[in-house]
Amino acid sequence: MHKVRLGMVGGGEGAFIGAVHRAALAMDGRCELVCGALASNAEKARRSGAAIGLAEDRIYDSYNAMLAGEMALPQDKRMQAVVIVTPNHVHFEVAMASLEVGFHVFCEKPLVMDLGQARVLAGKAEETGLIFGLAHTYAGYPLVHQARALVEAGRIGAIRKIIVEYPQGWLARFEEGGENKQADWRTDPARAGGGGAIGDIGTHAHQLAEMISGKEVVEVRAELTRFVDGRKLDDDAEVAFRLSGGGKGRLYASQIAVGEENGLRIRVHGEKGSLRWLQEEPNSLWFQPIDEPAQLWRAAAPYLDPHVSALFRTPIGHPEGYLEAFATLYRLFADRIDGVAIDDRLLVPDIKTGVRGMAFLDAVIASDREGGSWRKLDV
Amino acid sequence: MHKVRLGMVGGGEGAFIGAVHRAALAMDGRCELVCGALASNAEKARRSGAAIGLAEDRIYDSYNAMLAGEMALPQDKRMQAVVIVTPNHVHFEVAMASLEVGFHVFCEKPLVMDLGQARVLAGKAEETGLIFGLAHTYAGYPLVHQARALVEAGRIGAIRKIIVEYPQGWLARFEEGGENKQADWRTDPARAGGGGAIGDIGTHAHQLAEMISGKEVVEVRAELTRFVDGRKLDDDAEVAFRLSGGGKGRLYASQIAVGEENGLRIRVHGEKGSLRWLQEEPNSLWFQPIDEPAQLWRAAAPYLDPHVSALFRTPIGHPEGYLEAFATLYRLFADRIDGVAIDDRLLVPDIKTGVRGMAFLDAVIASDREGGSWRKLDV
Amino acid sequence: MHKVRLGMVGGGEGAFIGAVHRAALAMDGRCELVCGALASNAEKARRSGAAIGLAEDRIYDSYNAMLAGEMALPQDKRMQAVVIVTPNHVHFEVAMASLEVGFHVFCEKPLVMDLGQARVLAGKAEETGLIFGLAHTYAGYPLVHQARALVEAGRIGAIRKIIVEYPQGWLARFEEGGENKQADWRTDPARAGGGGAIGDIGTHAHQLAEMISGKEVVEVRAELTRFVDGRKLDDDAEVAFRLSGGGKGRLYASQIAVGEENGLRIRVHGEKGSLRWLQEEPNSLWFQPIDEPAQLWRAAAPYLDPHVSALFRTPIGHPEGYLEAFATLYRLFADRIDGVAIDDRLLVPDIKTGVRGMAFLDAVIASDREGGSWRKLDV
Amino acid sequence: MHKVRLGMVGGGEGAFIGAVHRAALAMDGRCELVCGALASNAEKARRSGAAIGLAEDRIYDSYNAMLAGEMALPQDKRMQAVVIVTPNHVHFEVAMASLEVGFHVFCEKPLVMDLGQARVLAGKAEETGLIFGLAHTYAGYPLVHQARALVEAGRIGAIRKIIVEYPQGWLARFEEGGENKQADWRTDPARAGGGGAIGDIGTHAHQLAEMISGKEVVEVRAELTRFVDGRKLDDDAEVAFRLSGGGKGRLYASQIAVGEENGLRIRVHGEKGSLRWLQEEPNSLWFQPIDEPAQLWRAAAPYLDPHVSALFRTPIGHPEGYLEAFATLYRLFADRIDGVAIDDRLLVPDIKTGVRGMAFLDAVIASDREGGSWRKLDV
Repeated sequence: MHKVRLGMVGGGEGAFIGAVHRAALAMDGRCELVCGALASNAEKARRSGAAIGLAEDRIYDSYNAMLAGEMALPQDKRMQAVVIVTPNHVHFEVAMASLEVGFHVFCEKPLVMDLGQARVLAGKAEETGLIFGLAHTYAGYPLVHQARALVEAGRIGAIRKIIVEYPQGWLARFEEGGENKQADWRTDPARAGGGGAIGDIGTHAHQLAEMISGKEVVEVRAELTRFVDGRKLDDDAEVAFRLSGGGKGRLYASQIAVGEENGLRIRVHGEKGSLRWLQEEPNSLWFQPIDEPAQLWRAAAPYLDPHVSALFRTPIGHPEGYLEAFATLYRLFADRIDGVAIDDRLLVPDIKTGVRGMAFLDAVIASDREGGSWRKLDV
Repeated sequence: MHKVRLGMVGGGEGAFIGAVHRAALAMDGRCELVCGALASNAEKARRSGAAIGLAEDRIYDSYNAMLAGEMALPQDKRMQAVVIVTPNHVHFEVAMASLEVGFHVFCEKPLVMDLGQARVLAGKAEETGLIFGLAHTYAGYPLVHQARALVEAGRIGAIRKIIVEYPQGWLARFEEGGENKQADWRTDPARAGGGGAIGDIGTHAHQLAEMISGKEVVEVRAELTRFVDGRKLDDDAEVAFRLSGGGKGRLYASQIAVGEENGLRIRVHGEKGSLRWLQEEPNSLWFQPIDEPAQLWRAAAPYLDPHVSALFRTPIGHPEGYLEAFATLYRLFADRIDGVAIDDRLLVPDIKTGVRGMAFLDAVIASDREGGSWRKLDV
Repeated sequence: MHKVRLGMVGGGEGAFIGAVHRAALAMDGRCELVCGALASNAEKARRSGAAIGLAEDRIYDSYNAMLAGEMALPQDKRMQAVVIVTPNHVHFEVAMASLEVGFHVFCEKPLVMDLGQARVLAGKAEETGLIFGLAHTYAGYPLVHQARALVEAGRIGAIRKIIVEYPQGWLARFEEGGENKQADWRTDPARAGGGGAIGDIGTHAHQLAEMISGKEVVEVRAELTRFVDGRKLDDDAEVAFRLSGGGKGRLYASQIAVGEENGLRIRVHGEKGSLRWLQEEPNSLWFQPIDEPAQLWRAAAPYLDPHVSALFRTPIGHPEGYLEAFATLYRLFADRIDGVAIDDRLLVPDIKTGVRGMAFLDAVIASDREGGSWRKLDV
Repeated sequence: MHKVRLGMVGGGEGAFIGAVHRAALAMDGRCELVCGALASNAEKARRSGAAIGLAEDRIYDSYNAMLAGEMALPQDKRMQAVVIVTPNHVHFEVAMASLEVGFHVFCEKPLVMDLGQARVLAGKAEETGLIFGLAHTYAGYPLVHQARALVEAGRIGAIRKIIVEYPQGWLARFEEGGENKQADWRTDPARAGGGGAIGDIGTHAHQLAEMISGKEVVEVRAELTRFVDGRKLDDDAEVAFRLSGGGKGRLYASQIAVGEENGLRIRVHGEKGSLRWLQEEPNSLWFQPIDEPAQLWRAAAPYLDPHVSALFRTPIGHPEGYLEAFATLYRLFADRIDGVAIDDRLLVPDIKTGVRGMAFLDAVIASDREGGSWRKLDV
């Protein structure tokens, strides 16, 4: 089977997310990493490329060099899409340049630095008609799609309240300026943008809530806190929100919740039932119909919807995890590039998701600045 | 051993909480129900009293009759304390009258209808020097005291964030005016006061947060929602709060969260560790020291603090529940009446706790009315 | 309401189970402890009786004195039933003597020291027609009855395999001869009988398996182990068994499983579904219909069978525990004495249960002695 | 980086485990599938090879053709190792032939059809000095290695009792002869060997127990059951065992436990502590030191041993699953082929593990045939 050829920008030595992307894209044999500009420093770029086995002539010193170098190759050799895994502040320019010369893009989240950039980029993507994938990994978990399907089927009735949380504990201390490269750039406004916890993980929670509910967050009221002395961005965020068509919600994201690991989780309460899902136990989905026993829906079980069942690689009881969710995003990205039909019900995070995320982020930051006013999302 | 003699007001046929009090007070053999005015209707009062085995001459038609009748008995026969288990709007007058003639009081929560009443009652209690117990049942769970002890010992460091929740689902539909007597009065402002979910269960959550943290809620911002059409009081409450001495928190109480049963739970995140406790699994307490494995502290285990260990009735692995927690409150109430020394570290909800609860409730309601302003607690 | 009057033999200072019985019998207001011979030593009996508030003239030095003293009282004052909470070796004589003079009996398990005694006692009970209750506490948990009801209703189909376990860890070290009075007699053949772990807790597991399945254990193959040096009785037991009408099972009981608290639990696998229940989380019952999501049945939920619902004291989400289960046994014991009709489906452990338990114990011990032969139960 | 070149035998259309191997070997970029004889039918072999993107000239009609074809290629092109994913009865001849001509082997379990074959194969492997990997996937989970490390460090003291279980429910009905190809061959003695559940999954449980404990199973007593009418091999197995150096254990494997998915789990009770691990929640390991709170050790946590930490691909809270465990086996297999040093503490299942597994299987089957005699393992 044909493999979609990818080139990576960022993700060199010391980066965490680059290796994750590489494991994910390789898993299903649908994508192949053929080139990269893995670091902004030329020597490091070269060393990093060699370390992951890229052909010497496909290791580039910069993304510009990569775009040019690949364009010079025959079409059936050159990469087809650019994977952007740099810190946030670099997303915009790489994505714009890639689209400009005709490459599809698969980009880390949050999309860009602010809503203005997001709109420009979305315009460019639309203009070119190229495929734009966004790494909202959690959208790759099959049971998240099952949750969405249960909502769509009316199994929990009209949604009244969503509670979505994303607590972590890894920034409970001042880690900036030390060995932890992740801590360094993710807390730096110049590289991360205006949001700390709210940008890094709050946008995931926002995406999950919209995805499962099939509704849009239309208005927010937020309070951002910097608990750790010396930190430049929020490490804890509380957001109340309103949903399109009624319904309320609350979003909580934190990086100072000692003992929390990567605790993205959601509860959706409707008039006739509820749903509960937790990223750290991704192979279980709780469905609670009113007046009946709660039901535990399990990954790869026979009663799942067929479009959900199609996403599993292993039989029931063989846990799939984060990398598998990520691999599903890559598989669907490759399918879209190849023009393979994707089930309508499989929502795939794209440039529009990215714009919505940036609108959410902008509104939250603005609300917080105003002491907690209600702010509409500007989309 | 001497048993403390109690008289009960309210709790007749069809009431839920009266029977719970009776099971709880009997459990440890420290209290004895000797008389009662169990209903406001004379015939029902008589029937209810007989049904629970009260002596005929100790069944009264009204609380006034009970107070008078008992005062007429010799001191070593008459009741020593009045247990108030009526709907909220009756608490004040019964409690005032009981204190007035010299009886100790054990009262359901929330204390009274508003902060004004609370202050008057607190003044009376102080003036008489009588014992005033408040039925914050969850304060009777031993591991809640262990949590408090861990905080006091500095095991989690300075508290940054408290998340306390109390979701239920039993009012997800309009139940008012039907067979469910509980639903009826708890959603009626005339009998329940100005708070629905926030008054009925939110005050428990507030008390738990203050108890475990050893801090006071000093300021709140709230949003109260009535999700169910036709309901007169809030059935969902979101409250942001500030703690004395720094630290923030969030409180969530709901009665429309389908599938939630009686889900009081708390997470306390400090600089060096975290705690987690859940009422529905009361015999487990999670303690998470930073950088170390999480620890599961279990009821009746050998490593608990001695003042906590003293609260258990059964060995490890024999679950104690809600009634046991309640019974502990009665045991401690009886000890205080008898002048038995209680370990200083055992916080017992009393009239001051009640005043704090009413101040919290008033501030929350006021904040909500003003569209979510920050309001200081007026204590 | 009339209270059934009880007299207690054993359960004085230092005993664990006596206090548990007292809390349990008091809980529902259906029983009353009116007299006792709480210790074999006269002074200790007196001190123990006073400590729990027995009237001075109802504190006896021996069970014989109690039987005689109570018989001398008018019928409407004297105790109606004898509660036997002594070490096992005393059960037989006290029970026989009590029945002889016309008192009902509520006895701790295991019933007696061997199957021969059990048969004699059962003959006496039958002859007198008196009520004989057996303290298989776990039979008092409502969800155990729900499990039984699901089996009876054919919801899991024909039973193939039962796995019942009862691990504890409290005897992982040599505790004999020290402060732990429980450890002392429960490991002493002269007082406990021929079974250590298998007698003390294995008989509970056996009873639970028969109760839920509605089948009888007809044959066993066993291996008993003494892991701790110097111990006189088994502290670990493995038993394979056959069920009447087909079906197999395995029973495991241990007192050396470090970290296990009181882990009685059962899995029942049928042709069409499975059940799972765990004593340490008694308010949850898992029902797994084949090909469907697992269902979590919860205590006091609206979908339970009515005869099960009638057993709860508190609403959903207010956990009931071990003492409540025990109190239910006392409530049903009192109902039987008073001739109150009990739902047919509520199995109450009685003298026949006790005989079955002793037959099981005898067969297990015999099988182990023979190096693991298959032995039929002799009932 | 150099990738180890692999050729696959079996795993064509309709096979489950072939795709799993391919995802696993690709994940870390350490191996590459370069050729295959994926089916015994030539056309199917061709179609299957094309479907997974093998080069046309590296798709073979039979394993013999593959061995010959690859030998004809220059050494730096030809495959280095043969991956055997056929039904059990084919393992022996393919493995022997592969070793014979100098290829390393990575083989599915159980190793071969009986102990005799196992010994011959082990002799050949030793003679050639080639690397022989065995697909005991669960040995790839990092926390299994952490469990082993805790035992080695003496943290639970001398081991007294191991309880290892592997229940599944997928064969609760007669599935043979239908669409389920897995059910078909795994229940057929001619292709699966003499063990049904005990061979397919019981051998995994045996391997896990030996791996974590660092001890050997030396003697067994077994009962094998065929619960489903018409089935030819056991679908439920109970095995008592003795450990080298003392200690006892019990192993349970079943395919008729409705509701069980892939429930491999283990409890290890030592004199000073206990361990508990469950394959379906592989990122959690319970460590229970005596007299202390239980500790929950989590995947990728900072307190893990360095050689364990080195096995993770994602940070804490990003669940790794079954495929990641499998990928780790492939990574270590590649490391061994390349001569990369592997930490001594990382036990890697190899030909000796396979022989031990077959000896276990033989002893179990023999014991069952003799009605449950104790049988020594013949190794």
